[in-house]
This record gives sequence, C-alpha cells and structure tokens, in this order.
Amino acid sequence: CAEAAHPNLVITSDNIEQMRAAIDEPGRFKNAFDKQRHMVDELIKHPIVVPVPKDGGGGYTHEQHKKNYQLMYNTGVMYQLTQDKRYADYVRDMLLAYADLYPTLDVHPKRKVKAQNPGKLFWQSLNEAMWLVYTIQAYDLIYDALNSSQIKTIEDNLLKPVALFLSEGQPSTFNKVHNHGTWATAGVGMAGYVMNEPEWVEKSLYDLDKSGKGGFLKQLDILFSPQGYYNEGPYYHRFALLPFVTFARAIENNEPDRAIFQHRNGVLLKAIYAAIDLSYNGLFFPINDAIKSKGTDTIELVHGVAAAYALTNDNRLLDIANQQNQIVLTGDGLKVARALDNNLAQPYQYQSTAFGDGSNGDEGALVVMRSDIDGEQALLFKPASQGLGHGHFDKLTWQFYDRGNEIVSDYGAARFLNVEAKYGGRYLPENESYAKQTVAHNTVVVDETSHFNGDVSVGNANAPTLDFFETTDKGTVSAGSIDTAYAGVQLSRTLALVNLPDLSRTIAIDIFNVIADQAHQLDLPLHYQGQLIDTNFAIEANTDLLKPVGKNQGYQHLWQKGQATPEAGLARVTWLNENGRFYTQTTLTDGTESFIFTQIGANDPNFNLRNEHGFIRRVRGVSQHRFISVLEPHGEYTPSKEFTLNAVSQVSSLEYSEQGSLSLIEVTVEGRQFLVAINGTEDAQANSTEFSYKNHQYNLDDRLGVYVLSNH
Amino acid sequence: CAEAAHPNLVITSDNIEQMRAAIDEPGRFKNAFDKQRHMVDELIKHPIVVPVPKDGGGGYTHEQHKKNYQLMYNTGVMYQLTQDKRYADYVRDMLLAYADLYPTLDVHPKRKVKAQNPGKLFWQSLNEAMWLVYTIQAYDLIYDALNSSQIKTIEDNLLKPVALFLSEGQPSTFNKVHNHGTWATAGVGMAGYVMNEPEWVEKSLYDLDKSGKGGFLKQLDILFSPQGYYNEGPYYHRFALLPFVTFARAIENNEPDRAIFQHRNGVLLKAIYAAIDLSYNGLFFPINDAIKSKGTDTIELVHGVAAAYALTNDNRLLDIANQQNQIVLTGDGLKVARALDNNLAQPYQYQSTAFGDGSNGDEGALVVMRSDIDGEQALLFKPASQGLGHGHFDKLTWQFYDRGNEIVSDYGAARFLNVEAKYGGRYLPENESYAKQTVAHNTVVVDETSHFNGDVSVGNANAPTLDFFETTDKGTVSAGSIDTAYAGVQLSRTLALVNLPDLSRTIAIDIFNVIADQAHQLDLPLHYQGQLIDTNFAIEANTDLLKPVGKNQGYQHLWQKGQATPEAGLARVTWLNENGRFYTQTTLTDGTESFIFTQIGANDPNFNLRNEHGFIRRVRGVSQHRFISVLEPHGEYTPSKEFTLNAVSQVSSLEYSEQGSLSLIEVTVEGRQFLVAINGTEDAQANSTEFSYKNHQYNLDDRLGVYVLSNH
Ligand SMILES: [Zn+2]
Ligand SMILES: [Zn+2]
Repeated sequence: CAEAAHPNLVITSDNIEQMRAAIDEPGRFKNAFDKQRHMVDELIKHPIVVPVPKDGGGGYTHEQHKKNYQLMYNTGVMYQLTQDKRYADYVRDMLLAYADLYPTLDVHPKRKVKAQNPGKLFWQSLNEAMWLVYTIQAYDLIYDALNSSQIKTIEDNLLKPVALFLSEGQPSTFNKVHNHGTWATAGVGMAGYVMNEPEWVEKSLYDLDKSGKGGFLKQLDILFSPQGYYNEGPYYHRFALLPFVTFARAIENNEPDRAIFQHRNGVLLKAIYAAIDLSYNGLFFPINDAIKSKGTDTIELVHGVAAAYALTNDNRLLDIANQQNQIVLTGDGLKVARALDNNLAQPYQYQSTAFGDGSNGDEGALVVMRSDIDGEQALLFKPASQGLGHGHFDKLTWQFYDRGNEIVSDYGAARFLNVEAKYGGRYLPENESYAKQTVAHNTVVVDETSHFNGDVSVGNANAPTLDFFETTDKGTVSAGSIDTAYAGVQLSRTLALVNLPDLSRTIAIDIFNVIADQAHQLDLPLHYQGQLIDTNFAIEANTDLLKPVGKNQGYQHLWQKGQATPEAGLARVTWLNENGRFYTQTTLTDGTESFIFTQIGANDPNFNLRNEHGFIRRVRGVSQHRFISVLEPHGEYTPSKEFTLNAVSQVSSLEYSEQGSLSLIEVTVEGRQFLVAINGTEDAQANSTEFSYKNHQYNLDDRLGVYVLSNH
Repeated sequence: CAEAAHPNLVITSDNIEQMRAAIDEPGRFKNAFDKQRHMVDELIKHPIVVPVPKDGGGGYTHEQHKKNYQLMYNTGVMYQLTQDKRYADYVRDMLLAYADLYPTLDVHPKRKVKAQNPGKLFWQSLNEAMWLVYTIQAYDLIYDALNSSQIKTIEDNLLKPVALFLSEGQPSTFNKVHNHGTWATAGVGMAGYVMNEPEWVEKSLYDLDKSGKGGFLKQLDILFSPQGYYNEGPYYHRFALLPFVTFARAIENNEPDRAIFQHRNGVLLKAIYAAIDLSYNGLFFPINDAIKSKGTDTIELVHGVAAAYALTNDNRLLDIANQQNQIVLTGDGLKVARALDNNLAQPYQYQSTAFGDGSNGDEGALVVMRSDIDGEQALLFKPASQGLGHGHFDKLTWQFYDRGNEIVSDYGAARFLNVEAKYGGRYLPENESYAKQTVAHNTVVVDETSHFNGDVSVGNANAPTLDFFETTDKGTVSAGSIDTAYAGVQLSRTLALVNLPDLSRTIAIDIFNVIADQAHQLDLPLHYQGQLIDTNFAIEANTDLLKPVGKNQGYQHLWQKGQATPEAGLARVTWLNENGRFYTQTTLTDGTESFIFTQIGANDPNFNLRNEHGFIRRVRGVSQHRFISVLEPHGEYTPSKEFTLNAVSQVSSLEYSEQGSLSLIEVTVEGRQFLVAINGTEDAQANSTEFSYKNHQYNLDDRLGVYVLSNH
C-alpha cells in the first residue's frame, strides 16, 4: 500500500513548512513557540520514566503516564519545527520504552471490578484512549526520524496493540455513543491514518461492524443537539470537544471528501460556537456540576477556536482567541496568530439564543438572553433536560448577569478541584446534599422536595418543554414548563429581558405559575450575589440564634437569618453587587408570600460551602400560585469617588393581568408607565394580535410587545 | 498697591499659556480638557440656582452650594483655556447671585447649637471654607473678564465678607491646629493673594495674632509627623492633603521666597509620598474609619501627585499618575500629562518604612513591611496612636497582603457612603459596636474588653511604643508595645517578614507576648479573607445551631461556628484566598490555646455587616502568655487550568527559644531548616552579637538574622 505522508493528522507537512517560516519572524506564533520550547527543553533534561502501571487516578504512575503523552506530543512538535534530532530521539526512546513495557502488561491492577472499560497503562480505558490520541500524533510527528526496525518495534509492540485493545478489545466502549467512545474512536481512527489501516478509520467512523449504529459519526449525531448544545452543559461540553475537533481535523486533512465539518449541517462548528455563546465575561454559565472559573480560555476551546477559524475565516473568532491569549502550535494556531498579528479581530457578537437540548433539539432548551444597552447583561433560563449524572435538579431555573458579574446565581459544583484536604479534590458530599438540590437553584421547590425526588434516571427521562422563544429589538422572551418534576404539579415559567424605550435600560420580568391538583407548600428561592441593602418591609431577623431552614434536600444547609410576610402590594429586596450596582427584585404579592432570608453554611462541619445569601418566597397550603416579580439593575455605588446614585428602586408600580393567552405587565419605572405584553399562545408562530387595555387599543405583531403608556 | 496678576494661585498665567498650547495637540492633557469641557458645557446649560441656605449636610441647598463651587471652578478653568467669554459670564453671574444673597444671610439655620463653627451658606464653616477655596480660585480665573463695578460688588459683598467671617469671625476655628483650620487658612490666605490683602496671608500663615501659635505653618508642624504621617491614618490623610497642597502651591507661586515646600525638611512632599506609601494595590491601608475602596486614585492625591511631580521631577511619581488615570487641568497636571505622553514613567518603588506617629514622631509608628520576591507582599503593623475620634481600638494589630489581595484583614469602617437606606449613608451603628472594637482586629483582647475600655480620650493620651524597626535584604522586623491599653497588662508584639534564603519565598513571624499582674482571659483573633480549607486538628463545628461568641464589645457580632483545643505542638489553619493562593497560619501551642472559629453577622438586624471569617486563639486564667505563629503563603489553586500545587503547608516544624534579648525561631520549610534570630535589645542600634544555638556559633550584625541550618 502507499506510504502515508507524515505528519498528516491535525498538523500536516504543509503546515510544518509555514510554521517553520513563522518561527523565524517576530509575532505571536514565535512567542508561543519560544515559550513552549523552553518548557520542553526543561522537561527533557530529566531521564525518561515509564513506570509499571500501579496507581489509580491521581496516583503517581497515573500522573506520570499522563505527563509522558503530553511531553511526547509537545516534543514531537518541537522536532518538526526545529528539525533538531535531539527532540525526535527523546520521543523515540520513550516510545521504545513503552514498546518494551506494553507487551508485558495485563489489565490494570486498579481497574474497577466487573467494569467493561479497564485500561492497561491506566485504570480505565478513557485515559488509555487519551494516551493514544496524543501518542499517535507524537509518533506521526517524529516518524521520519525512525528507521524501519524502530518503526516495526513501536507499531507492532505498542501502537497497534493499544489500538486493537481499545477497539476490538472492548467493543462496548468503542461503539458507545458517549464521550468515552469519542476518545477511543479518535485515537484508533488516527492510528489508522498513520499506520495505513483504513479499516480502522472505517470502524472508528461507523462502529466496529461498520453499521453506523455506533462510531464517531453517530456520536456527532447524538451527543449534540442540532444547535450544537451538549446535553451535560458547557462545562462538560468543552471537555468533550477536544477529541471531536482533533479527529475531525485529521479526517479533514486525510480525506477531505468526507466533508466531516459539513456533517449534519456543520454541527461540529456549531458546537464550537455554542461553547463560546454559553459563556459570560469569559466564563461558562455554571449549570450542573460546573467549576465556576472554567471559561473560554480553556485549552480545549483554544484548539476549537483555532480549528473553527481555520475553517471559516470568521474574524469575530479572533476576539475570543485574543481573550484566550494562547496560541497552539498547529497550522490552525499559526493562522490565528497571523490574523491577530495583523489586527484582523472583530468583536464577537453574543446573541440571544435558545439552544435546543437533546439529539433532536426537542428535549427542552437552554435559553440565553443578552442585552448590552445598559451594561453587558445576560439572562440564562433553563427549561433544559437533566443532563445525566452531573445534572442538577434545577428545572426552569434562571441566572442573571450584569456588568461582568453574577447577580442572580447558581452555586455551581461544590468541589475544590485537586485540593486533597477537600475530600481528595473530588466532588464534595455537599455537592449531592446541597449544590444539586432544587433549593440551591432559583426555581420552585414543592414541599421541600427536589425535582424528580432527586432521582437522576427519572430526571433523564423527563425533559421540560420550551414553549416559546423570541428575540427582537424590544427584548427577548421565553417560556418553558414541566409537569413531571412533581406528580400532579404543572410548573410554567415565563422570563423576559425587556428593553425599556426612552430609558435605555432593561428589566427582567419573571412569572412563575404553579398549578397542582392538591395543596402544597411552594418555595421560590432567589440566590443573589451581594450585600442586602434594603427591603420595603420589616424583616424579623434572627439576631442571636440561627437554625437551619429545614432538615434535608438541601434545606439543612441554609441558615434562616430572618423572615417576613410583606403586605399585599410590592415587596422589594435591594442588594449591592461588587460591580458597584444596585439590584432590586420587586415582587407583586397578594400578601400570602412569606420571605425567608437565608445564608448557606449550616450542617457543613468541614466549612466546605461558600456562605452566600438568598431569600425564599414561600406560600403554604395552596394548589395554585403565581410568583410575579421584576428584577431591576439600578444606580451606582462608587465610594472611591464619593458618589452614590439611585440606590433606591425606581420601579414604583407593578400590575399583572391576563387576557386569554396574553400576559400583561404594567410597570412604572422612573415615573414612566410601560405596558409589557407577552403572547403565550401555543401556535408555533404567534400571529398579530389586537387587544384593549385600560380603554386603549394595542396591536402586537409577535410575542413580546412593549408600549409606553405615559411619560410622567 | 500693585495690581496682582490673574490668575496666580494654583494656576498661573504662565501655566495658562502652556495649557492653551497643549489643548491644540493630541495627548493626555487635551483628552482631559475635552472631557471636562463636555461636562461643563452640559452643566452650564441649566439656569443658575443659588438657593437660600436651609438644609444640613446631604440636604438639597447643601448639595447645590457644593455643586456650585465646583462648577464655578471648572468653568473658570474653561474660560482661561478657551477664552470663550460664555464661561466667564456664567461664573460672573453666579458670583453676582451669591453677592446678592450673602449680605442677607445670618448664620445657618441648621448650625449645631452652641458650636463655634457655624457657616452661613452651610451648616458648618468647614464647608464654607471649602466653598471659599474653590470660589476664590474661580474668581481669580475670570477676574480679567470683569469690569470694576462687578469686581467691587463681588469683592465687597461676597468674597471679603466670607473671608472675614472665616477668619476674624471665628478665630477659634481659624487658629485651630486641625484640618478644619487648614481649609479656613487656605481659603482666606488665597483670598489675600487675589484681593491684595497681604495681611490676610500673614494671618493665615501665622495665626490671627501672627504669633505663629496657630495658622497654616503650625498646622504643617503639628498635623504631620516628621515622616509625613497623618495621625488619623491614610483615609483621612488624603482628605486633609488637598487644602495643604492647594494653598502651598499658591504660596509657592506668589511668594517663592517662603520656600513653603522646604518647610520642616519638606514635610508636605513627605506627606504626599506617605499617602502613596500607605497603600497596597492602589488602595489605602484601611486602618481606623476607612472605606476600603479609597485609594491613590482619589482626586486629592491626583492633585498631590501632580504638585509633587512638578516640584521634584521624580519620574517614579508618574507610575502613580498612570494608575490614577486622571489629569488635572493645572500647570502641574500639564507637566504630568506631557511626561506620561513621553513615556517617562518609572516604576514606583514601595519601601519598608516605619512612619513615626505624632508631631515629633515619637507616639508609636505605623510600620509597613514589603517584599516582592514571591508575589507583591505587604505586612502592616500598627503600634500607632489612637488617631482621634475615627481611631480604632486596635493597638499592635497587623494586616497582611499578598498577590493583590487582603489576606489577614481589618474590617475598615462599617459604612455605605451616601446610601440612604444604610443609616443615611453615615457611619453605621455597627461601626461603633463592631468595627472599632478590639476583637474586630488582629490583636490581643483582654477579658473581652476593648483597649482603653473603648474610651477615645484615654486612647489619644496613651500611644504605644515603637521598640525597633529594621529592614535589610534578610527581611524586615519590628516590635512595639503598650502597657496602657489595659491596667496592669503589658502587651508586646514582634513581627517579621522574612525572606527565606534559597527558597525565594517569605514567611511572616508573629510573637505576641502578654505579661499581666493578675490572671486574665486573653484572646488573639485573626480575621482572614478566604475559605477555610483545612486544619490539622478536629474542629467541633456548631452545625445546626449558632450563637454569638459573647455579649458585647464586638463579641456579640461574631457567630461561633466551631471550637477546638489542639494538642501541644503545631496547630495549622489553612485558607484559600480569591487570588488563588493558600495561606497557612501555624501556631506553636502548648496545648492551652483554644481556637474559636467565627463569622461576622450576629446581632445585625439590618444585615449591615460583611459576613467575614476569623478564628480567635484563647487562653484563660493566665497572667502570662506568648502567642507564637508563622503565616505562610503557599501553592496555587488554578481550577481553570485544572492544577493545584502545594495546597498543604510546607512548614513542618517550629521551635521558639530566647537567649537574653535574643528571640530564636527555628522553622522547617520545604524540608529545609532555618534559624531566624531577632535581637530585641533596647539599644537604639543593635550591636553585633554572637550566640550559640544547638552547638553552633552564630554572628548577628543587626536585629534580624536568617541562617540556613540544613538543606534536608
Ligand atoms: Zn446548579
Ligand atoms: Zn479597624
């Protein structure tokens, strides 16, 4: 058979020529190269260590084998760029050491008993597949420095056995439509390209039996929604992205006719854009088990953005690349570096979007609303599905962001990554007992019980519905509902981020409707970031004795700092965020809602939780209730310049009424009266509607109407 | 008499020529001018409003008169720079409106009863003096656009009466050696220059009777220490600075022979530098009643730095000016703008310094220790005096800063400046009940009672002693003591910020010695910023019921979250700061110290306090105790890049011993043994000392010695 060109995976020989030229000129690519070379030079000073596998995740041999594959890859790149044989020799020697070791290995001693996915070098085959993804690229990069006997040893004793072990050796993982399967198919498929085994490529793409029931293409079809949304949320999305982008790039370079990036209307590019769109101020929206500091500068997305830029020449992606401040040493990375050097970056435009959830995009949606007329704002609404084992019981929750900060927040994951003292760096017990529970979110809890009674499998089987989504110059509106979170209870929520004409500012409207077939206690928590400034009702504060709000399902972790039952009318809670702005939530209450002021931290013997604040609106013994409120950013607190503006809410009236499927919210802001109309009809496309309100006629063309009633 | 040139106060006619040229060229000065002009143009669109005085501080007429004087000044500057008569006319008309109003006024209706400092336009003459400081400059700036009848009206009916009212009219304030006196003498003195009343200048400088017992020069002699430290601390320092700098600049321009900036060895320049030196990461050290967001970019210091730069050409000041990011429209401001445009800025070098407190520098000191070998670090030690009514009962407290953040912190002032809902924006009740109390600080509390039993006058009369201060390449060490905070109790503390040889890192050593003539309970709190990560002893956590630690003197505001009594040996508490670094305090305990873990927020019915964390080391029923500990920054938590380094303390042993006046601390860090020797002899200059430790001989040339005992 024809000898394959080397290298020809993510990096091709064409790339290499240009990259070699680029490192002779000043610029971002050369800077990245210099930095990487320095790092590699430091590391290859040390002797090669390829230990006999012994330890599980986090242990010494585990970490050493991880370091090894990263170093082989980086050193291989250095060889290609500098043509300094020292680098090739290092990779060669390490590969030969592995080729010595591998034939002696049985499955890993720390494998999970009875699990179908053991590794040999690692306790699980996921890591083994990651090893292969990096190592096959490293091998490809130094191939031309090897003699035929070395090639034979490395391929026969190491790379082919590993590829076979990960494919024929464990079909259930290899064929699985899951990110573990993606790593395996990516590694084996690339091994097929490098070692001239086209059958391996076919099997990687179409299942071991080439039926198309499993394999890389099926994964692309199932794991992302048509809009490119990944079911587990952005934190896991970016993790899953890397093998997709890597293998796809290798396919594109070897077999452009497969048009892999056009597959399913370009879903892979959509997935890269979705990862960007699901961030605020550079950080991913922290839904489900997410660590809050992860964002668009993560290495997986650096690769993703580079690939997407190379394929699309979309200069707005350079805005993200600029923020990432990291250049990968690939042909795509070079293209990004050159474009940035030439100042081609254009501002990335974040859009209001509903990302359909599920393979067909019909298992609810994750909704992002954006506005930048009054500070950069985002409202995240989550009528999305459970998202597997890392999902939270947070159906219909929302989050609000303004001027760079979280305002109405989600706890994210309770975890200190890799901090041994904090439960070995794993998810803390409080992740289960608090962070996943419904009360940790900004959504309704019935009878102090979490959605689906906290059962993940029930959650996975029952997605909410996205009832509608619309974005126009008036703002963005969306509604979602679910009747399976609790037996006999229908939860429906409508959220709108509304631009107020003339005032150049926004408000967020929240209408949460609960209809049940019997009486319940209904709680709607709001977790805010900041310090409480004022309420327009008296709080009975618990000043010298604190007790938890409840006994379990997350309530045991909330100290009850005070309570109140405001009279019918408007109940206001104002807090000050660290961004120097005030936020007031104004609730239209009928006098039955009591407010419970909370702070996280009870039943937390190891001080694992952040002691954040919130309040719960509670009604008892009702079968129907509508929670109605408006969130209003206002004013400015700048003590450094000794000025404070508009610390007091400017929402002076709020009325709610309905006409058929039309919800009408009348609100007075800064003395101006506005009418917001939301057409909740079930028609897929809302039609033009006429209605009359307080003796005036109005016409509503779409779902969201905003009318100025008076200017005084 | 000779007609004075106009303008000739802070801004001179020479300045004006250069400033006019500068606004025709691109650069920082023109940018600042354009911005200011736009602001002035917006404001002078509105009709002139000079209301009859009625309201006290914060009320409408009060705020309107404040706005008026600022606007007159800014508009006057615009007139000089643009020569557009519109601006002069606006100022003229407002001055004439004031000249109409002023003769009709008696003292202000909201004046304090029986107080000797009422104003007429304002409830207190302090504001009236500020009005004059701005207004006399505005008048000077538009003088050449006025005819003689306007001049006569404005001077005879307004400016001269105001100046006489503030001088002859209230001698006790005018002659007072206090910042209120500074504003009065500055206003009256500048009025003397502008209106050719040299006697007024003399009186402003030397007291109304020209005895020199009061007046501006006496204020310079008394209000600052020889090192330029202002007794109330940096937050009030920057406030007091403005009239000093303004009047001094006017004196320098009118009568350079007075050499005002050389007065008392250049104390005014020292005071400007001190304000800079008493900051960390751009924010003033928050001692006493300080709002934490105030820093070196405050307008008072923008003027101060501009003046200091014009006088010294010290290019390091441009580093500060750069951070201030604001150019004042004066001759000095132009000089700064040009220098910045020409990239002349050099890094400002923050030094370790002991700022003597009190007029003679002998009432204790405020000590700043700095290190930048392992992150930018500062240790603030406060054996300083009470600092008048805004002082806190915090003798010998300390604070620690690292990598941009507070690590061991001071609460600062409990106040939301100008936020009406928070106690009218004034100091909150919790400022007295918590923030000022000793337990809110990182220093010893005896029998749960604050220093001086919370009596300010006793505090003011009894300063601590600075026992020694030394800074070398080994680090910085200082000791202070006080025996008047509690009857029969001697408090002595030694703090050192030590550079560890070979390791390129620092530790802070804290030795707090208490000797009493009878048994007491001794508490040493430490208020840390961050989340508790680990302790090497079990904490009995109060998980489902919280109570306050005590009943009063600040203890009533601390929730008791847990308690423990570690065994004799090393007791470690590790927390993680938002800067991504870990901090461990290792206490060498004899087994008698119990640890009480606290969170601020009890007895706080209006949610006024920030809910920060701390722990109190407590011993009971002892007449002597030495608290010994080491604070160690370590490791890195970077979840965004998925790595965590050295989350565990690397201090593995700690021993303490004494030989005469020599304190010997043996500490093992990263497996290396160090001996730190501190020579506490009372000699002003420590002499060379020889000592023997564990059978080795050592020589100590100065106060601080750091020796490597072993490398393993
Ligand atoms: Zn969550
Ligand atoms: Zn304080």
